[in-house]
Amino acid sequence: MDIEILDTTLRDGAQGEGIVFSVRDKLAVAQALDELGVAWIEAGNPGSNPKDLEFFRLASSLRLNIAKICAFGSTRKKGVKAADDSQLRSLLDAETEGVVIFGKSWDLHVSEVLRVDFEENIAMIAETIAFMKAQGRTVIYDAEHFFDGYASNSDYALSTVKAATETGADRIVLCDTNGGAFPDAVSAALKAVRQEFGGVVGIHAHNDSGLALANTITAVQAGCTHVQGTLAGFGERCGNTALAALIPSIELKLKLRCLPEGNLARISQLTRRVAEIANVAINDDMPYVGAHAFSHKGGMHTDGILKDKRSFEHIAPEAVGNDRHILMSEIGGRSAIAERAKKIDAAITKDHPVTAALAEKIKNLEAEGWAFEGADASFEILIRRELGLYKPLFSIEAYRVMSEHPAVEAIACSHAWVKVLVEDKYEVAAAEGDGPVNALDGALRRALTRFYPSLAAVRLEDYKVRVIDGKEATAARVRVLIESTDGQRSWNTVGVSADIIDASRAALADSIEYKLIGDIERNGE
Amino acid sequence: MDIEILDTTLRDGAQGEGIVFSVRDKLAVAQALDELGVAWIEAGNPGSNPKDLEFFRLASSLRLNIAKICAFGSTRKKGVKAADDSQLRSLLDAETEGVVIFGKSWDLHVSEVLRVDFEENIAMIAETIAFMKAQGRTVIYDAEHFFDGYASNSDYALSTVKAATETGADRIVLCDTNGGAFPDAVSAALKAVRQEFGGVVGIHAHNDSGLALANTITAVQAGCTHVQGTLAGFGERCGNTALAALIPSIELKLKLRCLPEGNLARISQLTRRVAEIANVAINDDMPYVGAHAFSHKGGMHTDGILKDKRSFEHIAPEAVGNDRHILMSEIGGRSAIAERAKKIDAAITKDHPVTAALAEKIKNLEAEGWAFEGADASFEILIRRELGLYKPLFSIEAYRVMSEHPAVEAIACSHAWVKVLVEDKYEVAAAEGDGPVNALDGALRRALTRFYPSLAAVRLEDYKVRVIDGKEATAARVRVLIESTDGQRSWNTVGVSADIIDASRAALADSIEYKLIGDIERNGE
Repeated sequence: MDIEILDTTLRDGAQGEGIVFSVRDKLAVAQALDELGVAWIEAGNPGSNPKDLEFFRLASSLRLNIAKICAFGSTRKKGVKAADDSQLRSLLDAETEGVVIFGKSWDLHVSEVLRVDFEENIAMIAETIAFMKAQGRTVIYDAEHFFDGYASNSDYALSTVKAATETGADRIVLCDTNGGAFPDAVSAALKAVRQEFGGVVGIHAHNDSGLALANTITAVQAGCTHVQGTLAGFGERCGNTALAALIPSIELKLKLRCLPEGNLARISQLTRRVAEIANVAINDDMPYVGAHAFSHKGGMHTDGILKDKRSFEHIAPEAVGNDRHILMSEIGGRSAIAERAKKIDAAITKDHPVTAALAEKIKNLEAEGWAFEGADASFEILIRRELGLYKPLFSIEAYRVMSEHPAVEAIACSHAWVKVLVEDKYEVAAAEGDGPVNALDGALRRALTRFYPSLAAVRLEDYKVRVIDGKEATAARVRVLIESTDGQRSWNTVGVSADIIDASRAALADSIEYKLIGDIERNGE
Repeated sequence: MDIEILDTTLRDGAQGEGIVFSVRDKLAVAQALDELGVAWIEAGNPGSNPKDLEFFRLASSLRLNIAKICAFGSTRKKGVKAADDSQLRSLLDAETEGVVIFGKSWDLHVSEVLRVDFEENIAMIAETIAFMKAQGRTVIYDAEHFFDGYASNSDYALSTVKAATETGADRIVLCDTNGGAFPDAVSAALKAVRQEFGGVVGIHAHNDSGLALANTITAVQAGCTHVQGTLAGFGERCGNTALAALIPSIELKLKLRCLPEGNLARISQLTRRVAEIANVAINDDMPYVGAHAFSHKGGMHTDGILKDKRSFEHIAPEAVGNDRHILMSEIGGRSAIAERAKKIDAAITKDHPVTAALAEKIKNLEAEGWAFEGADASFEILIRRELGLYKPLFSIEAYRVMSEHPAVEAIACSHAWVKVLVEDKYEVAAAEGDGPVNALDGALRRALTRFYPSLAAVRLEDYKVRVIDGKEATAARVRVLIESTDGQRSWNTVGVSADIIDASRAALADSIEYKLIGDIERNGE
């Protein structure tokens, strides 16, 4: 590899607000990182977190193909021998091939936070590294706050790094711990370190100025060959360098190899898996791997993409395992509609009469507040209807939804009754719910499951409401977006009405219809 | 100002997935941008979007103190005279002080997307700018895909810029439309343009490589004095340069002025307001203004912060109007609460017991999904309640809301019945509506107007719903935000519940309460 990647999702990432990993989660994240093929997994701080020690005990059961595990800790306490320091003992107990030792390079931190004299800080660094090397560990030295230290007192900052190199640190990693450095400062400090000490120099950046990626790329351009970050960007405050947004730039644009051949195309999927394990969503606008990273909405953009992909894409989404989305919107046009209709009937072109009819229909629906950009399944049903391929599988004959306050004893605040017709058979069902829509959803699916048992597996994953034009206040039209899943696939539908219940009814009906059409097509009926 | 800021939230921002602005939303965004004090507001593309034309018609009613409005459009069509081009006519009809004209600089786009010969493209640029200058407009020329064009064919890219400068463009803005450029390439191309043509050069970056901020800062360091972006970073694909994450870096670190004195401290609040109008949340990890930007979780970080703020903060959060959060401790937030409570009772300080009680209450409410960011009136009622200054003016004893489909003859789909108690008198009222919330609102105000005739003047201006956690689908909690007016003043209230009817009831009740309290105080009762 040209660049050695160290992922610290399990250590620095876990310090992000809202990120909590169980030991089981940590093992699953380590597995995903190994599948991606990073060189090092920094897995925790055994001296400060007992849960981390348990992870290291279990880590030996993981079958990692590529990644090596390392544990993170600080230099020895002041006035204590390294061999007698309990925190360093815990680090050794983790029994990892590598240890990451962080030490202070910023004079402010030495005097105000650590509260030791400058000489003692240097002794703490030197003795800790010498001790770990004597124990046979690969030592990665994190020079914390290096860039702030270099700006404040460059001689002292360099003398701390000198102590680390002279005692045998295998990597010197310059850290922008507060995330405030600019690329020009990173580049200058890094050149000074490389010139003075040589060896493998690394970079560890935070995103407080939105420059973590730029600082890391600048460092690589200036000769750094070791890069630290977290796959999805998790970390203290604004997060660490997001490796999923960095590695594609380094591999595709700087042409330097970070991952084994072929693995870059899995980075979107693995990043989402790691985020899923942490139970947080990655930002939709995340470079390369975000859900919107290759979404085209403006008409001129859509038109350009259909003529030449390069016209509005800096890389091909396939290279990072992501997908292109042509959004249906008032700004988009006919080419986009034809592109989508083609998937249902290959004969549809931009100039086909159905395309013109659909464009007209969509324009009118959008004027009423419909939006299909987040509702693929409703859009597909619309196309099928226009193509004459649509055969309604059920109809909702009537419903009543009641919300009461205060709740009558033993009856929830909201309850619904619904009557459906399937071919020539009627069915009624009722349900209670936490709110009127929840109750209607329950009653509707209960009634239809009698005819279509596969609906029992369907559940709603997400439900969004948007008031389209606030002018009329509570009489304004609302747009409801629903995401459904049957455990195998997910799909999105939309409904619009002045009545939130009716808008929800429309989106729920489309969702069920889409599921049933898919079942029929897959069963070749 | 050292740097001229152009915000394109209303144009490029509206091309972001999931961003839809009504005309009313657009006016509110323009107001917020003017409060921040940007130089230009790029407000839409009147030639391609009829909704934008309506905005420009209404924009003259806005009282902007600082910002000037500009409209966006392309160069003339091929083979048409500028004066005969309908799109350019629409641009003029917008009657803005400035126009932004974009043209092609990348040979690939000229031949593959625009499909004209190289000479004609240059004529299109030159004639369009000359025409707009003759009409007395300030012309900002956006050289679309400039960096890709410069990399592909630098002579041709420069010749397009030459056409723009020679015909009088007031600003030459180099665009990284696909977001794929690296800072070193941006710096080199920019120096070439400045050297060759001089004049005011600007930068417009996209974030597809996560480098929009770095590219913009690099451009400013290389002499750019005009910067384009969107306040919250909205935009196609991965978004535009996020001005809220950029301006603090330029003002606090490069020491160049972008905004009027004192306005930087309002940037967090105004960014959230703009996101609120778009009904999308800004990323928590957004630099400077995100909810997590100054959150400290790791024990060593928390300890460091308590010893010296600089130890783990690159800037003071107050500088950008954001708050520090020490997680798992409740030191944060109190000063802000005291600041607000002071307006109701001047004796309240940060250390007053009421402040601590309020902090605790707000923490619990926020954990349940309440947010007072956009609901000043609800927040004030909360404080009054805690101060013991709150005397309920009515209570909603019971309500029933029914939605039926199909509608029974001569009865609307939704109808509501409500029973209120004022002192010792009961009153019931009923109303029909377009949806359940509309019906409930009507019945509630009808019942209370008997006691409080001033409520007859109140109407709802805006109504927004946000699902707080989509994971539980239709049973998820919803947050309802309501804007009310009595013709003189406007106020905002919030309600949260798993039941949208109940959440709306809470926000409606707060709204009425707030109006009545204000009436009583003004009448000296």
